[in-house]
Amino acid sequence: MVESAEQLQPTRVAQVMRAIQARIDRRQYTPGSRIPSVRAMAESMGVSKSTVVEAYGRLAAEGVVQPRLGSGFYVAAPLAPLDLAELSPDTDPTVDPLWMMRQALRPGGDDIRPGCGWLPESWMPHETMRKALRSAARDGTGPALFEYAPTQGADTLRTLITRRLWDQGVEATPEQVMLTDSCSQAIDLVCRFLLEPGATVVIDDPCYFNFMALLRAHRANVLSVPVTPTGPDLAAFAAILETHKPRIYITNSGLQNPTGATMSAAVAHRLLKITAPHDLVIVEDDIFGDFEEQPAPRLAAFDGLDRVIRVGSFSKTLSASVRSGYIAGRPDWIRGLADLRMVTGMATSTLNAELLSAMLVDGTYRRHLERVRDRLARLRQTVKLKLARLGIVPWIEPAGGMFLWCKLPEGCDAAEVTRRALAENVVLAPGNAFSASGAAKDFMRFNVTHMDGERVYQVLARAMENGRPAKSRR
Amino acid sequence: MVESAEQLQPTRVAQVMRAIQARIDRRQYTPGSRIPSVRAMAESMGVSKSTVVEAYGRLAAEGVVQPRLGSGFYVAAPLAPLDLAELSPDTDPTVDPLWMMRQALRPGGDDIRPGCGWLPESWMPHETMRKALRSAARDGTGPALFEYAPTQGADTLRTLITRRLWDQGVEATPEQVMLTDSCSQAIDLVCRFLLEPGATVVIDDPCYFNFMALLRAHRANVLSVPVTPTGPDLAAFAAILETHKPRIYITNSGLQNPTGATMSAAVAHRLLKITAPHDLVIVEDDIFGDFEEQPAPRLAAFDGLDRVIRVGSFSKTLSASVRSGYIAGRPDWIRGLADLRMVTGMATSTLNAELLSAMLVDGTYRRHLERVRDRLARLRQTVKLKLARLGIVPWIEPAGGMFLWCKLPEGCDAAEVTRRALAENVVLAPGNAFSASGAAKDFMRFNVTHMDGERVYQVLARAMENGRPAKSRR
Repeated sequence: MVESAEQLQPTRVAQVMRAIQARIDRRQYTPGSRIPSVRAMAESMGVSKSTVVEAYGRLAAEGVVQPRLGSGFYVAAPLAPLDLAELSPDTDPTVDPLWMMRQALRPGGDDIRPGCGWLPESWMPHETMRKALRSAARDGTGPALFEYAPTQGADTLRTLITRRLWDQGVEATPEQVMLTDSCSQAIDLVCRFLLEPGATVVIDDPCYFNFMALLRAHRANVLSVPVTPTGPDLAAFAAILETHKPRIYITNSGLQNPTGATMSAAVAHRLLKITAPHDLVIVEDDIFGDFEEQPAPRLAAFDGLDRVIRVGSFSKTLSASVRSGYIAGRPDWIRGLADLRMVTGMATSTLNAELLSAMLVDGTYRRHLERVRDRLARLRQTVKLKLARLGIVPWIEPAGGMFLWCKLPEGCDAAEVTRRALAENVVLAPGNAFSASGAAKDFMRFNVTHMDGERVYQVLARAMENGRPAKSRR
Repeated sequence: MVESAEQLQPTRVAQVMRAIQARIDRRQYTPGSRIPSVRAMAESMGVSKSTVVEAYGRLAAEGVVQPRLGSGFYVAAPLAPLDLAELSPDTDPTVDPLWMMRQALRPGGDDIRPGCGWLPESWMPHETMRKALRSAARDGTGPALFEYAPTQGADTLRTLITRRLWDQGVEATPEQVMLTDSCSQAIDLVCRFLLEPGATVVIDDPCYFNFMALLRAHRANVLSVPVTPTGPDLAAFAAILETHKPRIYITNSGLQNPTGATMSAAVAHRLLKITAPHDLVIVEDDIFGDFEEQPAPRLAAFDGLDRVIRVGSFSKTLSASVRSGYIAGRPDWIRGLADLRMVTGMATSTLNAELLSAMLVDGTYRRHLERVRDRLARLRQTVKLKLARLGIVPWIEPAGGMFLWCKLPEGCDAAEVTRRALAENVVLAPGNAFSASGAAKDFMRFNVTHMDGERVYQVLARAMENGRPAKSRR
């Protein structure tokens, strides 16, 4: 009993247990693999061997690891399936990305959804869609209606997307473009292609909440850089490059979600410059790009699709029901990604691609976008004024898009406001759902296209009044 | 220099290197994790410590592992993206599943494709499809045409699928059914949900080649059981259960691809019985089920969707362009799978679901299937007779479907025949593309619906004559 002579420190035991559990969660230690020896772990964490023995013993009692006689401790084979919710670092469900997504997609006819990320269907090009469907019914070929698409997707839409990329200065060949079912799927494929479990990924803070949920599914080690009005904070980025080895950075150059920030040409240039010596791939998600009034500089154009992978979709501008997205990148990567796409989902839909192509070609898309942009610009002003009366102020004046990223009045907790509004069937998007660091608790993302009428402002006012800590109430 | 006194055996060094590399490939050892100590590895492989030292040294020189002073060897962080082709155990590209899929999906108007896995588009219900498109153009609601679907997919199609499951004796509630974009995606999601890298998966030998390619993407440890005319070889299955701990078994109960074998009720019962004490999930892929003349017993019906997950799609019977598939299983698993589906691809297509619903409801689907089944039954006989003249004989008489799994004449190598036929633009499906054990080199899967005219038989005859080893030629 020599070892127990030393006083065990319960917090240190818990520390060791958490360290092991975290590495198992991130798949640094996989089932059946050996965890470090007691001595090695004690040294690396600067604790006594008896602390590690105690921690390993408790982990074994919990079934997390298994001792094997004479050869140490091994990670137990898990019986439970992947639980995304369990991988969540958050305890508050209101700011959990999964919860946010489920809420936003939950059917509910009477709900008002300033927290959602899309335009109302009444804004969408109904007549163009119906015309495309009639045309498919009349002229659709047998292959288009019934056959599997080629591995990189239907040629017509790929060619149209390639042409649109050239318009943005991204000189891609059609071989560098492949179709996916959605922008989310595009990012998921890139992650499957480039990430190992435990790999480090950089995201913006705040950023689209699904990046965080998706990266959980990949067991990535997620780090974030603060967003400034002209792009990511480069000093913070440089520090991460020095101390970690991030594999991917995911961002929106134009109309960053949720802030609406636009990357300046100088920041784009410097970002590419500081990342050049590192083995980092930048995933530029352009899903909101077509809403920009003045197109922002594109990383994909600066870089020439070398270390930048571009992803996008028409879910926000044409239809979220006709599923489609794309990836543009290095030809060898696109071949690998197309193989992965084929193996994990066979083919994309030629019919969907043909419907979108029909909606994209005849100039109606350009006119549709112009109308939407004008309407959005007017609405952003109207909603800004109405929110101002409640003391809610936009962080910046975005150069386009449907979002206003706003600061709530002093003392308001966005998650609490969200819970109270939900009880009145108003679905909001609290700041910390977008923040990896949890630094946005008094922020809220508002979708100006879902804020018609006075009711949403009345509900907001009530929820904010009740959402303040008691001391700051009247 | 005590250790080097022992004679180093180069083959043993290579053995140790291969063992480590294989575990890294399967992600049993992930980047940054420690590989076993020299002593532990020497003991477990029954070799000397100096052999392991030499092997580890070479792996370090190759950049596969990195030594860290005083604490052993660690798996190096990989810089290369996922390469499915590199994960292939095959050296012959003609029997590589990826190559097969790329060939089958490659556009090529004049090619004849007895190797493909679908019906010609001329067999598909053109008028029903055009009617569905016209109806969507006319009556499609805004939400159906433009909005994201609920997380488990459009209710109409889910309800129809639930009803069809009941008809097969699978008593699922709508909460137990979720939509996917395809059957492949359904299986991929189940693998992501249930598998850890390195987990053991059982497949049939032979089986659909994409199961092997897909499982490579999951870094699974794949074991196979021989297929008999009435289902998997249960003795072989029992042996695997005893010695390994398989997590998933993927199979087709009805019209097994490629053999056309149908699982008997007795085999289904015994399979569920021997697997019951183990932590094994059976994935029943029913994609060809609707082609059966007499429905085979369904594992999902016997088991009541407890340990069996059912997946399926309408890609083979209605359209491969209107992408859709489904998963039916335990309610808690379906919730987890729907979360995973949402995070990795947002939503399925309501428009696609509505088109399929329109094609499924009005009795035309039943009549379409009856016509297709009759036509297939006649064609299987015709093609069988024509192949018999070339000495090609079906392994069994399948109870339905488009495939004949055939033995080539003595001395014919299916891969060689495939290469020669491809030079004449005939795409074949050689046996070993379907065989995890490589035991089907003189087998070939023929799709009877792509064998019109005499040319395919002439090309086959030439390719077989030239494909025999020189000694057996006339």
